[in-house]
Amino acid sequence: MELGMIGLGKMGANMVERLQQGGHKITGFDPSADARKAVQAAGADAVDSLAALVKALPAPRVLWMMVPSGKITDDTVDALLPLLARGDTVIDGGNSNYKDTLRRAKLYAEHGLGYVDCGTSGGVWGLKEGYSMMIGGDEQVVEALRPIFETLAPAKEQGWGRVGPVGSGHFTKMIHNGIEYGMMQAYAEGFSILKHKRDFGLDLHQVGEIWRYGSVVRSWLLDLTTDALEKNPNMDGVAPYVVDSGEGRWTVDAALELSVSAPVITLSLMERYRSRDDDSFADKLLSSMRNEFGGHAIKKE
Amino acid sequence: MELGMIGLGKMGANMVERLQQGGHKITGFDPSADARKAVQAAGADAVDSLAALVKALPAPRVLWMMVPSGKITDDTVDALLPLLARGDTVIDGGNSNYKDTLRRAKLYAEHGLGYVDCGTSGGVWGLKEGYSMMIGGDEQVVEALRPIFETLAPAKEQGWGRVGPVGSGHFTKMIHNGIEYGMMQAYAEGFSILKHKRDFGLDLHQVGEIWRYGSVVRSWLLDLTTDALEKNPNMDGVAPYVVDSGEGRWTVDAALELSVSAPVITLSLMERYRSRDDDSFADKLLSSMRNEFGGHAIKKE
Amino acid sequence: MELGMIGLGKMGANMVERLQQGGHKITGFDPSADARKAVQAAGADAVDSLAALVKALPAPRVLWMMVPSGKITDDTVDALLPLLARGDTVIDGGNSNYKDTLRRAKLYAEHGLGYVDCGTSGGVWGLKEGYSMMIGGDEQVVEALRPIFETLAPAKEQGWGRVGPVGSGHFTKMIHNGIEYGMMQAYAEGFSILKHKRDFGLDLHQVGEIWRYGSVVRSWLLDLTTDALEKNPNMDGVAPYVVDSGEGRWTVDAALELSVSAPVITLSLMERYRSRDDDSFADKLLSSMRNEFGGHAIKKE
Amino acid sequence: MELGMIGLGKMGANMVERLQQGGHKITGFDPSADARKAVQAAGADAVDSLAALVKALPAPRVLWMMVPSGKITDDTVDALLPLLARGDTVIDGGNSNYKDTLRRAKLYAEHGLGYVDCGTSGGVWGLKEGYSMMIGGDEQVVEALRPIFETLAPAKEQGWGRVGPVGSGHFTKMIHNGIEYGMMQAYAEGFSILKHKRDFGLDLHQVGEIWRYGSVVRSWLLDLTTDALEKNPNMDGVAPYVVDSGEGRWTVDAALELSVSAPVITLSLMERYRSRDDDSFADKLLSSMRNEFGGHAIKKE
Repeated sequence: MELGMIGLGKMGANMVERLQQGGHKITGFDPSADARKAVQAAGADAVDSLAALVKALPAPRVLWMMVPSGKITDDTVDALLPLLARGDTVIDGGNSNYKDTLRRAKLYAEHGLGYVDCGTSGGVWGLKEGYSMMIGGDEQVVEALRPIFETLAPAKEQGWGRVGPVGSGHFTKMIHNGIEYGMMQAYAEGFSILKHKRDFGLDLHQVGEIWRYGSVVRSWLLDLTTDALEKNPNMDGVAPYVVDSGEGRWTVDAALELSVSAPVITLSLMERYRSRDDDSFADKLLSSMRNEFGGHAIKKE
Repeated sequence: MELGMIGLGKMGANMVERLQQGGHKITGFDPSADARKAVQAAGADAVDSLAALVKALPAPRVLWMMVPSGKITDDTVDALLPLLARGDTVIDGGNSNYKDTLRRAKLYAEHGLGYVDCGTSGGVWGLKEGYSMMIGGDEQVVEALRPIFETLAPAKEQGWGRVGPVGSGHFTKMIHNGIEYGMMQAYAEGFSILKHKRDFGLDLHQVGEIWRYGSVVRSWLLDLTTDALEKNPNMDGVAPYVVDSGEGRWTVDAALELSVSAPVITLSLMERYRSRDDDSFADKLLSSMRNEFGGHAIKKE
Repeated sequence: MELGMIGLGKMGANMVERLQQGGHKITGFDPSADARKAVQAAGADAVDSLAALVKALPAPRVLWMMVPSGKITDDTVDALLPLLARGDTVIDGGNSNYKDTLRRAKLYAEHGLGYVDCGTSGGVWGLKEGYSMMIGGDEQVVEALRPIFETLAPAKEQGWGRVGPVGSGHFTKMIHNGIEYGMMQAYAEGFSILKHKRDFGLDLHQVGEIWRYGSVVRSWLLDLTTDALEKNPNMDGVAPYVVDSGEGRWTVDAALELSVSAPVITLSLMERYRSRDDDSFADKLLSSMRNEFGGHAIKKE
Repeated sequence: MELGMIGLGKMGANMVERLQQGGHKITGFDPSADARKAVQAAGADAVDSLAALVKALPAPRVLWMMVPSGKITDDTVDALLPLLARGDTVIDGGNSNYKDTLRRAKLYAEHGLGYVDCGTSGGVWGLKEGYSMMIGGDEQVVEALRPIFETLAPAKEQGWGRVGPVGSGHFTKMIHNGIEYGMMQAYAEGFSILKHKRDFGLDLHQVGEIWRYGSVVRSWLLDLTTDALEKNPNMDGVAPYVVDSGEGRWTVDAALELSVSAPVITLSLMERYRSRDDDSFADKLLSSMRNEFGGHAIKKE
């Protein structure tokens, strides 16, 4: 198929490469000349404006957005709207909040345009191993995109699927990330306890290696964790500072809205907040409270 | 009544003073000459050995231990055993683990000695406001000590009681402290959110003052918290480092043993651990995992 | 002062009564004739429409809304708008989300109308004990209402205050409720552990009574909890079903938005969700997972 | 090698079968005649007493215990002691608490006997896929058992290793299970949120299938979870009742002892407690508290 890729960053460029290898004809757009050159080197065409991109594609057009969620996605959606024609389809492959997706899809539907949300997992490994894709949209629209998904996925019939109407793809991807937070935190806590049990002198990389084969906790995340422990067993030079990227808090938002208890996913997110607050007011206040009622000494800064 | 007080630290000395004011005749023991002088100034006698203390008291003797839990309590219990006579009673007013209390009481019962556990709350304010006392022991033994408890309590019939057999006093005090951890954490989190809502420019001390009268969250802990916020609104110079003293983790142990879910008390304890770990291995590992799968940059130390 | 009270339910009627007792002249409005009669019995006037209420008050008018948050508040705000004149003031004494308050206040400001948010705590006890009030709004507007607040508060200078600009009152009240959730959960967990320690045969009401005097955990909530344990020691006939009313989840929302870790408040909310889900899909799935990897038997429904 | 297997239940019998297939000569012991017959059918010998087992093996003997942790392991360890001779080795392949292992190993060392702890993961799938084994013990003793571990493991050099001195194997396995609890809970929460988002009509089995390939959350536990969702998409007939087996709470114990924050593992355990308490006293008390301060209706049982 022919497809226009909007956004040629780390994720977008990898996808272009995998699609080109799969025999598709990709034209990419990115404001950065370097990014454009990189995909040209991989055999794709690249243009320097959305208008040029739309012009370069045969009707009905298929465009894949791989841009940061939020304002940039909104700007792109708005800029494309007047350029497109009835029957064209835009796929949002990024990490958009599903509520934004519902809003954008409604706008596009009013103009006879297809809108598909594709929650994409796989990170930097997707180029080689394929992407896991949770797709929301009208059945016929998604079906027409089958060749694209079959190429991006790890295998033709594996790792992708239409999970429901538009919005459901991003919703499912959001929950995927919530689970990811919980799993990561579980491993981190476990390895941390092992680390603190100093009298056993455990080699955490070795423990991870053992667990990778035959254990109940084997997983791809464990493979990566073990790899990280091999490269840097004591995490030298790494700050205890963990970023979160939005999908975790949206998962908690969803739990709150649906009145579902999700303590582990929620705590995993809050531990990340805590990691970035090295001057916790709450903890200072607690120390002062102890001093007030018990006369316990306050540790000074 | 006549009573021997073992341990004339902050808590023990205050108790001696309150008991003397209540008309009791107290003889204190502490290895520190300064500590002995302090209670003598308050009108009590003081001696420099356990043997002298036992000798100074009329039979049947009543001894109150107010010493640190663990080894010092065990040493005191062991040292007293050969000095005492059938009918004497020892009260452990400290923060002992109730399982240790059960063990010690069994030993004393084998020698015809009374053993009473008195979980004591009130901290440095107890001298003025009276102590809340949760008491475990045989009914008759506890009843014989009534004049002591009536004086130490905030009022004759308030703030004290025999809650059950020996061990139950310390168990109940332990749970008291678990609840205390949870309440403290709840306030700390709430004030922390207020603090971070910078656009409202809230005065946390003022908010605490308002809540002290008529609100659902009014409490003695809030009174103290508000006082701390008045003295030091921004917690200047206070390290975000919160000590825990054993009773919190014993409460969690009890929850685990009884298979009772106690998430808030447990989390409150673990937040204290977290406050003291400013170089969290778990968080470093999480940051490295994110780099592994997503190529996300690691913040350097 | 003269004041119009909109909403004569449990809270509104109590406030009318307290204000009348304080020498203010109150005219109430409620669509229910019974509710109107009740406040008339307390010496207040009552009318059957917002228009009549506005007409009954001298300019500049002061109106206090004590209605359910959400749609009813919005409807009232909208209905009042055309009836009011420059210089009039509306106070929202209910549990509105502070974001809604900001929106409504903006609308009113555009029409030269005062808008004040008053987070009100105290529940059904406020009539007798006074209300704790966290107030947001322009300084002059709030100052003009001083006589009202001094009467509703527990004492003239206690339990109320302007904490900041409009919205800050409801924000502060929201956090108050978040703390309340955490405190309640801490007590509930503690008493639950005591309950499950069957060999000590503890009397939970007695324990609560002891803690009420001199202990670190003494509070008004403990007073009420002890009262509940006296009336119904084993909670006979009470379903383990805990309602939440919006302010808890808004507090968690605020924590998420501000990236503040608030594990105890959050867990307290989620425990309430869990209490209302007696057929947990998560737990069924966990049981099935155990069967899958370990061959462990599944408990049947 | 020749090896005596003590305990021919689900795990022990599977291990015998895998070892026989690997060319080892196994003699099994179990008090149950049926269990003995089953391993005889797989080509192993079987005897009906520990004494007969010890007699059947050539010196230095190697015995593998695969029995329930706690009393039965202690009984077996005690019964074997007088039967064994200097140079013999006992391996505890079960889920013993590492503190018990340290105690037992000390006793055996005093008698010149080898004692090795092997934390074994893999469940009912180990027969086919091999077991993940974390081994503690003296280097030479463990090295001598290499042929056994190479056969039981998924591959000769994969999925097993000596992680440290005696006790460290069971400690590491305990943490493995703690992580397992956290991962399971993360998946369960995620699928539960998906389930409650009814308007998207998601097929949870399909979502699991998609995630199995290429996603960040792919794992063996996800494979099993997806399988469970295929067999029983709505978990019909499954009670929301989740058992825990000791290792989770020991992990929390270890976190407490080492003062390490492990909120997610801990909460995962407590959620299991909660799942088994369908008449929560804590929740009843919370409902009653709400009634006390707010006059909110109590839901009746």
